[in-house]
Amino acid sequence: MNDRRLAEQVRIVGSGLLGASIGLGLRAHGVDVIVEDTSPSARKLAIAYGAGRAPAGGDRPGLIVVAVPPDVTATVVAAELKRYPEALVTDVASVKVGPLEELREARVDLSRYIGTHPMAGRERGGAVSARADLFIGRPWIVAGHDGIGYRDAAPIEDMILDLGAVPIEMDVADHDRSVALVSHAPQLVATLMAARLLDGSAAALGLAGQGLRDTTRIAESDPALWTQILGANAGAVAEVLRPLRGDLDRLLTALDSPDEPASRRAIAELLTAGNDGVGRIPGKHGTDKRFASIVVKIDDKPGELARLLTEIGEEGVNMEDLRLEHSPETRVGFADISVVPEAAHTLAAALEHRGWTLMEAER
Amino acid sequence: MNDRRLAEQVRIVGSGLLGASIGLGLRAHGVDVIVEDTSPSARKLAIAYGAGRAPAGGDRPGLIVVAVPPDVTATVVAAELKRYPEALVTDVASVKVGPLEELREARVDLSRYIGTHPMAGRERGGAVSARADLFIGRPWIVAGHDGIGYRDAAPIEDMILDLGAVPIEMDVADHDRSVALVSHAPQLVATLMAARLLDGSAAALGLAGQGLRDTTRIAESDPALWTQILGANAGAVAEVLRPLRGDLDRLLTALDSPDEPASRRAIAELLTAGNDGVGRIPGKHGTDKRFASIVVKIDDKPGELARLLTEIGEEGVNMEDLRLEHSPETRVGFADISVVPEAAHTLAAALEHRGWTLMEAER
Repeated sequence: MNDRRLAEQVRIVGSGLLGASIGLGLRAHGVDVIVEDTSPSARKLAIAYGAGRAPAGGDRPGLIVVAVPPDVTATVVAAELKRYPEALVTDVASVKVGPLEELREARVDLSRYIGTHPMAGRERGGAVSARADLFIGRPWIVAGHDGIGYRDAAPIEDMILDLGAVPIEMDVADHDRSVALVSHAPQLVATLMAARLLDGSAAALGLAGQGLRDTTRIAESDPALWTQILGANAGAVAEVLRPLRGDLDRLLTALDSPDEPASRRAIAELLTAGNDGVGRIPGKHGTDKRFASIVVKIDDKPGELARLLTEIGEEGVNMEDLRLEHSPETRVGFADISVVPEAAHTLAAALEHRGWTLMEAER
Repeated sequence: MNDRRLAEQVRIVGSGLLGASIGLGLRAHGVDVIVEDTSPSARKLAIAYGAGRAPAGGDRPGLIVVAVPPDVTATVVAAELKRYPEALVTDVASVKVGPLEELREARVDLSRYIGTHPMAGRERGGAVSARADLFIGRPWIVAGHDGIGYRDAAPIEDMILDLGAVPIEMDVADHDRSVALVSHAPQLVATLMAARLLDGSAAALGLAGQGLRDTTRIAESDPALWTQILGANAGAVAEVLRPLRGDLDRLLTALDSPDEPASRRAIAELLTAGNDGVGRIPGKHGTDKRFASIVVKIDDKPGELARLLTEIGEEGVNMEDLRLEHSPETRVGFADISVVPEAAHTLAAALEHRGWTLMEAER
């Protein structure tokens, strides 16, 4: 097959979800993939699922992908560097500073190592959950350090592109700080709010709207996995949460004397900072445009939403985003549709003409 | 018209979004609605939009709805109670303890007053944004106190039902505590996280996934409005946020020594509490069932999502929920579809057979 960039033989060490998915994806492009695992049965399973072949005498991998848990990543990377003195070695752990420090302490040849982090995953792990398409459309960070140039890591970029992901260059410290901000701290903030719900009455929880649901959604994540991730990136996460605690302390002081003008000002300033912060999140396709929102009432019967979207298509309007809201106590739902502002007025009129009930969502 | 419960003539004081929407909704049922406002031009506008008629000699309202800002609610309620000694008076302010205390201090006749809170709104205020259907499917709390029984407030429940909302009985203190937990505290938690994004690099923000987007979505809300709401319910909000700060302090201590077993345990316990908390939020239709999730890749071209939903309908499967995810750097999207677990396997197979690519979402 010629529709690939990566030319090298690839050895994957660790046949869990990520390792097996990389193997499946590369084999779909005709790459010769070798699968290794400390567990022979795990290796057999991954091979049975088509992630690659067993190691053999004469293997000369040009690229080695270490896909093992963070706490053993550096040890395995060091062993592979030593065993294959010609190969480029990478890993896919979700933290990058710690493993690099361990490798520095072990005095290995860092000119052949560069870590990466594919921002993809599934709820269930293991080769049985692996998918060749796991990485399609996902950012995949190549976490540089001063022992190697990004150009020397070209096969890694080839692999990322072959797997359909988007390579992003970022040094290890920036990586760990970035994921602390956009992934690890939000995880904990959602968790902190969700934990408060244990104190609420059932009647209070019955009033929950879309705002609470959205704010706490990721608090459903697996505690065992996240304890490991947060432990491995604790410093960077604390750097986000400590100033957050400073803001919270000022907020609590303001709430203790809410009628003081200074308190009103402090609350208003924090809310404005929140507006500005959320405005910095890139929109769809990496741009920052804002869309107009149209909220349509959807009766809870099969096919209503499909009919709405089909009719929006018939009006020639491209929907930029869609969010469903439910009213907890009734069988009524609302579809919040984002479209370019120019199209909003005409579409709203057309939908009302077609018999839909339009409204706007509670914030 | 006979399709109504409410028999009384209704007087609405305050012709902003809520007052005018109540007027529009009741007039659609044939109720005689009188609109009053301290601003003659605002009153004229609301009447022009069809929210009711101007006051006249001989008006004998059986129900008066005070729909003015929270800080003047008690004053206006007291004046209306005095002016119409036969009428039942309510208000629609989003906090309930403060206005009642003011009325107690003013020693008015509380046997004819009971406050309410419709959990509905729009981003824009004023009669121009008013909608007869603003309240459909929304919870509308009737906030009881010991000066009046819920049975004596039957016309208020009639009005709520006529407007399509769901009346919920709850005393004033429970109301303020409940909205602090499910609405006001989440607003601030989302804001605290969003404010941290001001410190992030553009590259870090470029990695933002659906988790960050959901956690911070409501931080877009209007600072002026929320400063007033939070000020009026400061005590109850602080009662939620103070234990949250306690959890955050313990978390920061754990993050400072992440390798200690006690730290790992503290982080794991918090994450588990978050799991349990989010599990208390009622699901669709007020039940707590869990659904199976199927994630389908959607190419970014018009009509793809409509086609998917139509085909799901053709398979005879009722979709319980739908969430769209976007990959920030590419033109690929994912539809996360919730269905009853029994239907998941068959539907997934059918969709793959129809040529869709299935995957699962990153948590």
